[in-house]
Amino acid sequence: MSRTNLQLVDECDRFPYYQDNPAAYTEHLKNYHFFKVSGCDAILGYIVNDVVSRISWAPSHWTIDSLNRTVTLTTGPDATPQQRSAIVAQTLAHEVQLGTFDILKGWRDELYPVYGPNGEFLLELERSATPLFGIVSYGIHSTCYVEDENGLRIWVPRRSRTKQTYPGMLDNSVAGGMSTTEHPFECLVREAMEEASLPEEIVRANATPAGCVSYIYVRDSQAGGETDLVQPEVEYVFDIKVGADVIPKPCDSEVEEFMLYTVEETKAALANGEFKPNCSVVLLDFFIRHGILTAENEPDYLDILTRVHRRLEFPTASHVTK
Amino acid sequence: MSRTNLQLVDECDRFPYYQDNPAAYTEHLKNYHFFKVSGCDAILGYIVNDVVSRISWAPSHWTIDSLNRTVTLTTGPDATPQQRSAIVAQTLAHEVQLGTFDILKGWRDELYPVYGPNGEFLLELERSATPLFGIVSYGIHSTCYVEDENGLRIWVPRRSRTKQTYPGMLDNSVAGGMSTTEHPFECLVREAMEEASLPEEIVRANATPAGCVSYIYVRDSQAGGETDLVQPEVEYVFDIKVGADVIPKPCDSEVEEFMLYTVEETKAALANGEFKPNCSVVLLDFFIRHGILTAENEPDYLDILTRVHRRLEFPTASHVTK
Repeated sequence: MSRTNLQLVDECDRFPYYQDNPAAYTEHLKNYHFFKVSGCDAILGYIVNDVVSRISWAPSHWTIDSLNRTVTLTTGPDATPQQRSAIVAQTLAHEVQLGTFDILKGWRDELYPVYGPNGEFLLELERSATPLFGIVSYGIHSTCYVEDENGLRIWVPRRSRTKQTYPGMLDNSVAGGMSTTEHPFECLVREAMEEASLPEEIVRANATPAGCVSYIYVRDSQAGGETDLVQPEVEYVFDIKVGADVIPKPCDSEVEEFMLYTVEETKAALANGEFKPNCSVVLLDFFIRHGILTAENEPDYLDILTRVHRRLEFPTASHVTK
Repeated sequence: MSRTNLQLVDECDRFPYYQDNPAAYTEHLKNYHFFKVSGCDAILGYIVNDVVSRISWAPSHWTIDSLNRTVTLTTGPDATPQQRSAIVAQTLAHEVQLGTFDILKGWRDELYPVYGPNGEFLLELERSATPLFGIVSYGIHSTCYVEDENGLRIWVPRRSRTKQTYPGMLDNSVAGGMSTTEHPFECLVREAMEEASLPEEIVRANATPAGCVSYIYVRDSQAGGETDLVQPEVEYVFDIKVGADVIPKPCDSEVEEFMLYTVEETKAALANGEFKPNCSVVLLDFFIRHGILTAENEPDYLDILTRVHRRLEFPTASHVTK
């Protein structure tokens, strides 16, 4: 029943690795079509074959190559991101109308970006549709903690029991997705207020960027909607060290309550599977950076550390602020 | 002339990735034989073909399969690590006598371990020979720093100009290799005294384990000895935060002097190529964990972070202290 830390990583980083078994990996890839846009060689995402067969791809805009298993958004060489995005939006709108996918019933009205191999912005699409295309999505996750004479304690929120995804599970102190034009720190500031009622000045004074976690999630029933969809993610990680007088409070309807957990309580909840999978790996990364998990007390230390910093095979964004 | 941070990573993590170009990767692997031991399926290291052809492999102990490009240490099913190690030692002693390899002229008389897929200890061999077999080696690297009203400053040693490897280059505050029976913290304590005259009580009071870096180095002329040898490494990373009154001093002949560099001075020396390659990546990891390099000021942030936490395709050790 109790999970090891590596099992927690397995629940988040679920896509196989070539090196572990080249033959099995190559075979596994046959479950997917590669999402591409014309004029760009890179594979932008993995689309489950079943999803490919259920979408009505307008032949004027899409080329489906069953032999090479590619789905290519086909435009003239001078196509703009706006034009590509409009085609995707049209394709999705049609499927929403038909009710093809449960996952699109969680429509968010937020646009998520897709980047090319040189960091160029290619297109954007509705957040809830990103797992259908298997593209990389970006977000921020933070650990708000108190470290004083009572030791290190972490602010742990419980997700609302009415949330579409992972209802009632434990989460990272402040976390959220980055839409197209957003930058990591800006996203952190926005989410800190929306989810935890933490004012901007507290965040600016106490938050430190501390890396990111990256992994390839594969959706299961907890995530809601269709299963087996591929969801590569990059989550920028922040530590927010606060005094015991700073108390996060639920603001919107996303969070039910905040608890101040000791490290032992946090570890127990992790082992018990109470955290949303990608929140577990953010906490494991936090524990490693803070010397709580070490090479000398965690047998899978190296596996954990390399798995939660997975090098994605898709182009990714630079979020440098100009 | 000036290097980007990603170029510094390129100088350390030099082995190609399958995902970047599957065909080129597969072709590149043809430059190597795979090091194996009988009774264990795992590939333990990559041996450059030229090295394979120059070693006199005693047929009673070694099986060379040119078709599958494997070099297998062949023993009975009940072989002990001692027996395997003795065979390797005998093979190496013969080559030392013949003077086959320059790299063995840097004989260290330190034994480095090789582990199997379940963390089992398979054998140990002379440190200077590890790149001939392309096996994973382990070490510790630490950043000793002062953070006060003058900002964050890092203790940077210059390697002795008479050292065999990377003479005169800049290094991490305290760093060194772990021989077979050593554990990370123990290695840190030993090296801190040997290289920086830092007493054990200072290290115990101020050092925090903060992860590890892993990469596949490929030796060039700076490293001394034969070039193109493969050197996968795991370096456990420690931060040692000290007051301005703690001043590391050279002790053995490895270090020439210690300088207290500001972050800007450290960055300039990095860009100028003054650091030993694997020390650069330890500093980049430090900068990321401390919020000095961020997603918003480093265009290659994600590439850097995932490359310096490379998931190695070889079995690795667990260093849990029993």
